[in-house]
Amino acid sequence: MSTPLPSFVQALAVLALQPFSELLRAELTAFHTGHAELRVPVRAVLSQQHGFVHGGVIAYAADNAVTFAGGSVLGPAVVTGGLSIQYVRPARGTTLHAVADVVTVTGSQAVVRCEVLTDGDDGETLCAVAQGTVRLARPVPAR
Amino acid sequence: MSTPLPSFVQALAVLALQPFSELLRAELTAFHTGHAELRVPVRAVLSQQHGFVHGGVIAYAADNAVTFAGGSVLGPAVVTGGLSIQYVRPARGTTLHAVADVVTVTGSQAVVRCEVLTDGDDGETLCAVAQGTVRLARPVPAR
Amino acid sequence: MSTPLPSFVQALAVLALQPFSELLRAELTAFHTGHAELRVPVRAVLSQQHGFVHGGVIAYAADNAVTFAGGSVLGPAVVTGGLSIQYVRPARGTTLHAVADVVTVTGSQAVVRCEVLTDGDDGETLCAVAQGTVRLARPVPAR
Amino acid sequence: MSTPLPSFVQALAVLALQPFSELLRAELTAFHTGHAELRVPVRAVLSQQHGFVHGGVIAYAADNAVTFAGGSVLGPAVVTGGLSIQYVRPARGTTLHAVADVVTVTGSQAVVRCEVLTDGDDGETLCAVAQGTVRLARPVPAR
Repeated sequence: MSTPLPSFVQALAVLALQPFSELLRAELTAFHTGHAELRVPVRAVLSQQHGFVHGGVIAYAADNAVTFAGGSVLGPAVVTGGLSIQYVRPARGTTLHAVADVVTVTGSQAVVRCEVLTDGDDGETLCAVAQGTVRLARPVPAR
Repeated sequence: MSTPLPSFVQALAVLALQPFSELLRAELTAFHTGHAELRVPVRAVLSQQHGFVHGGVIAYAADNAVTFAGGSVLGPAVVTGGLSIQYVRPARGTTLHAVADVVTVTGSQAVVRCEVLTDGDDGETLCAVAQGTVRLARPVPAR
Repeated sequence: MSTPLPSFVQALAVLALQPFSELLRAELTAFHTGHAELRVPVRAVLSQQHGFVHGGVIAYAADNAVTFAGGSVLGPAVVTGGLSIQYVRPARGTTLHAVADVVTVTGSQAVVRCEVLTDGDDGETLCAVAQGTVRLARPVPAR
Repeated sequence: MSTPLPSFVQALAVLALQPFSELLRAELTAFHTGHAELRVPVRAVLSQQHGFVHGGVIAYAADNAVTFAGGSVLGPAVVTGGLSIQYVRPARGTTLHAVADVVTVTGSQAVVRCEVLTDGDDGETLCAVAQGTVRLARPVPAR
């Protein structure tokens, strides 16, 4: 690949350019080759009808952490092709924490695994397990 | 199952109790046995760095439409166990539209398929295809 | 795409060239643009420890039907990139029947859905639901 | 759970009772709490039209390794509920090797990850990455 891999600072800049990530106040807390971590502060506005973090927020965190991990090995011009997520426990606590690791890279695609945890008084709890694919983006036609 | 299945009005009430769905201004636009449709108005704040709807919003819409479709056959006390989503086209337009249909119900679980489309000047465009499982919720221990 | 799409006869020839499909005695019973059906006669040798058809056979049928459906729109040089399968009922009966339909094609990839059913005395029973992606094959380096 | 967890010998006995695993000559080469490994000797009869191991064989190996890993923590009466598999490289070599590890157990369900590798002259090559769910089996009604 000729594109240089993005630095942590460049990855932070990409996240800052995502209005939806700003809305969710997501922070990229780790980023190096094959690895990315995203944190989302848990707020009432992110919850579902029982007060737990909404599954959509968990899916967002997994999706975005997977994309950043993929970008760490493929370069910044990537898209997530697909994601399989298993929700294993209701999410509550103070912070949602998505940890993504690249399993393998083949050609223009990375397969990435992700765990989503919540930080609480009693340590971290695993609330979702995901697996996704990230690939080099095809140029998108202008609108 | 002894629990009566929820009516459209009851489903609307559940959605109204989800702060995250309120944040995204999601509306339930169809709900009957085995079927649910959710619409999310596309706004700049829901986008990623290239101006398309963020994958996390698309995942939210699929996840929630799948859960409601599952609830339409299993009753209101359900959780989504897992979701596999394929992103097939960048999402832009005026409205995100998630259409979910139950494929089969076995015991306490429903398998649900979902398509996420965007409405634009040139009609609807398919942007994601998903498959999920919804099951009766186990009681959650008090915090 | 410049490659002409395969005919039913050509698809039958591809299946006949798959030794594993021969081992399982799989037959391609329908093949046209966007659609493929595969049938596997149920035999004792295909079962698991309780006498039901082994999940691996069901996964084979879904995988192969998905690949053929993808090939019906992308041409013969395709590979299945991934498959998500939900097993919903134990499979028994006389024939395993995998029915695959292309949902959408974007560039070099097709997203395909598949249902696996068993034929028995009491009609067809759905035993698995799958979703997969098929893409144009990259040339494989010689060994 | 009151059922004692199965021993390696008991797991070997379960595999020996699966006619389809016998047909594929699969061997269970490791089995302890949260972990299972399955090996399938690569033979011409397991291949697809280009001489690589058929995706259905790879899916079988992943599915079965995931089920055994789930059984190592849930007991012998389990079924695999679903599996998401990404095929990342064509499989060739002398042995297919599926390595499955339980990520988490909640109530009656385990989430399991699996890698499928091939052994060849040049070491092991990763050919597929999977994630599955295993749950306690519900009693199956007699036919």
